[in-house]
Amino acid sequence: MNLSEMAARAREAFYALSTAKVDQRNLALLKMAEQLEKDQEVIFAANQLDCEQALQEGLAAPLLARLKFDHSKLKQVQEGLLSLRDLPDPIGETVFCHELTEGLKLYRVTCPIGVIGVIFESRPDALIQISSLAIKSGNAALLKGGREALRTNQALIQSVQTALTQAGLPANAAQLMESREDVAAMLKEDELIDLIIPRGSNAFVRYIMDNSRIPVLGHADGICHVYVDQDADLDIAFQVALDSKVQNLSVCNAEETLLVHEAIAERFLSTFSTLLQERGVEIRGDEATRQLIACKAATEEDWSTEYLDAILSIRIVPSLDAAIQHINHYGSHHTDCIITENDAAAAAFLNRVDSAGVYQNVSTRFADGFVYGLGAEVGIATGKLHSRGPMGLDGLTTYKYKLIGHGHTMAEMKSGQWKYTHRVLDEKCPL
Amino acid sequence: MNLSEMAARAREAFYALSTAKVDQRNLALLKMAEQLEKDQEVIFAANQLDCEQALQEGLAAPLLARLKFDHSKLKQVQEGLLSLRDLPDPIGETVFCHELTEGLKLYRVTCPIGVIGVIFESRPDALIQISSLAIKSGNAALLKGGREALRTNQALIQSVQTALTQAGLPANAAQLMESREDVAAMLKEDELIDLIIPRGSNAFVRYIMDNSRIPVLGHADGICHVYVDQDADLDIAFQVALDSKVQNLSVCNAEETLLVHEAIAERFLSTFSTLLQERGVEIRGDEATRQLIACKAATEEDWSTEYLDAILSIRIVPSLDAAIQHINHYGSHHTDCIITENDAAAAAFLNRVDSAGVYQNVSTRFADGFVYGLGAEVGIATGKLHSRGPMGLDGLTTYKYKLIGHGHTMAEMKSGQWKYTHRVLDEKCPL
Repeated sequence: MNLSEMAARAREAFYALSTAKVDQRNLALLKMAEQLEKDQEVIFAANQLDCEQALQEGLAAPLLARLKFDHSKLKQVQEGLLSLRDLPDPIGETVFCHELTEGLKLYRVTCPIGVIGVIFESRPDALIQISSLAIKSGNAALLKGGREALRTNQALIQSVQTALTQAGLPANAAQLMESREDVAAMLKEDELIDLIIPRGSNAFVRYIMDNSRIPVLGHADGICHVYVDQDADLDIAFQVALDSKVQNLSVCNAEETLLVHEAIAERFLSTFSTLLQERGVEIRGDEATRQLIACKAATEEDWSTEYLDAILSIRIVPSLDAAIQHINHYGSHHTDCIITENDAAAAAFLNRVDSAGVYQNVSTRFADGFVYGLGAEVGIATGKLHSRGPMGLDGLTTYKYKLIGHGHTMAEMKSGQWKYTHRVLDEKCPL
Repeated sequence: MNLSEMAARAREAFYALSTAKVDQRNLALLKMAEQLEKDQEVIFAANQLDCEQALQEGLAAPLLARLKFDHSKLKQVQEGLLSLRDLPDPIGETVFCHELTEGLKLYRVTCPIGVIGVIFESRPDALIQISSLAIKSGNAALLKGGREALRTNQALIQSVQTALTQAGLPANAAQLMESREDVAAMLKEDELIDLIIPRGSNAFVRYIMDNSRIPVLGHADGICHVYVDQDADLDIAFQVALDSKVQNLSVCNAEETLLVHEAIAERFLSTFSTLLQERGVEIRGDEATRQLIACKAATEEDWSTEYLDAILSIRIVPSLDAAIQHINHYGSHHTDCIITENDAAAAAFLNRVDSAGVYQNVSTRFADGFVYGLGAEVGIATGKLHSRGPMGLDGLTTYKYKLIGHGHTMAEMKSGQWKYTHRVLDEKCPL
């Protein structure tokens, strides 16, 4: 089947799925958990082949670990499905009701977006996570996983489609794209596809944006900062600045640059540089930093580099203002943290730093859909429109206006026969 | 000043404006109303020159009327400014508060988007409307009006900038772009500009989308439908189907195609075709329509044409399903209406038609930001992301996550030392 046909079928599936009751969408999630159990031998065998080939092709160990789909991954995925089933229905919710004039009520009601194209990395459990989020929120998904995981993904999509059919929903609500050509073809289908979520490198996301009219939500870089203010509690500064860097080096919410107020720099860095060295973290400091501790020199390029590695750039700043300016200039609008006991400084930082997540005294590693209580996430959005930060169920919904009247015309309104009342009512949409 | 410099200054202005208190932003709106009064002679003189030139160049009468900026337009604009001032502050509002674990609270708080580029038509009062919406919501705006209105817009932007300065806000929060080259240059500034709102033709909006990485919100076509169901109240059908077409022919929320259920077609069309003829509306019907009334033949192209004129295409459909399919296939996802007394049919229509506005028994002409009670509007969005339908103050805001803790680290969470509580709290963000 070519991509245009897949997209057209996804659109049909969306129309059916978007009006299915929540019980039916939840049933599909339960059936998915059950079907994965039944199909586990087929899935594990497919994954075995993927892993063997990846090993032969010399895939790095951390990537191999992410590619693995075994009993413990299966259990995690099943638990995820059941907890997603328990979350409230994100669609059909009345956001507000306004009476416009006598007998005329306007309702803003949440609804699914439509057909969503998602391109994700080698981790095959992402296929289940993304399709289940799409199904729960009434959207159809076209999915493209990593090349290394193709056999596993082919097995998994079979289980997902069987489950959809068992729940009385169209199997085409979740379809697998298998080639790069499919992705290129998808970018042209702006009449059939409503949204693309690319997970991948900065260059890849830009390639998608440059080659499609379809709206794109996704993150480019994750250049996260921790700023140690002059009024920081030093113990909190040590633990948060360290955790943000080392708890997981290769994730988008890890700290890449540390900013330190000059008034506290000597006291803070003398101890903190030792903590970093104990964890094997290479420091790249600006000139002022190098006068206090031994380290490599940071270049201009370092301030806009996402290392995803055991490297931290450090800059000493003369003021809170300078820290905010540095972050707004070099950062990627993902997640940034101030360490301070001074609430006026915290308020200035939280309000003026132009990022999706702005933290006081918390590790940047908390930027995550599960941690935020949003269920799982389909991605972290660093743009500012529609969804920001971890993108869970509510990021996969939009709204429509339902207006219910009794023959109201604009001619009558303009004639003054009726007046606008614009009353806010606490009412759910009856239709 | 070149466009890059303008954009950089707009970004600086945004940082100042986004943290200004609502009283200061409201003061700017009051000062705008006062300054326009003071500057009225200069503005009227500039507008006089614009109108004279437009007349010489043979601009059509309706466009000339829109170009005119006189005492009565000034009064309207001033009333708009004062009523916008009275609306609640759209930014700094806590959308929700989640306790993630003991002592760790996550707040989702509304905030401005940033720098917004708006391209609008010849109507100069749009300049005031858009800049005032931007200022109220803490955004900076780069504005490009119609070529015909250049002198008027140059005078108006002076008054706006003077008012901003009087309110202690940066004048660069509202700047005028004067040439097409400025617009082309703006499309490249994806590091400095957050959103583009083009108002104009379908082809123009697509040109913008194809030539920029910056997110675009705006509408392409407005192909709105009225569907007369078999259970319609005929009197309501006559008045709503007529008002939707003729109350204003040249607007995006006017009806372009009428769909009629075959069971009611003869009774409805025999009278309705007379009503249309009395108003001078040309009918283009499908074959079944032409068997009932005398009219031109509709072609395939008619179903996807936005006439913006005294023309209506009519199709007889065998079922509600067929009507919904026609609308989802040929429509532009703007606003569509069902005429019915049958609530099951209305529910099916409102839930399955994939448009920003779905109406029961109301003229499509109600799709408007003022009518919806959203204040004015910067445009009508027919996309599905971020904002849908009339885009008022809340369409110009986004949100950020503020997370306030006491040294919380992911290492401690992973160790099980702390558990996620994920409690929903009814609390405002203190910072």
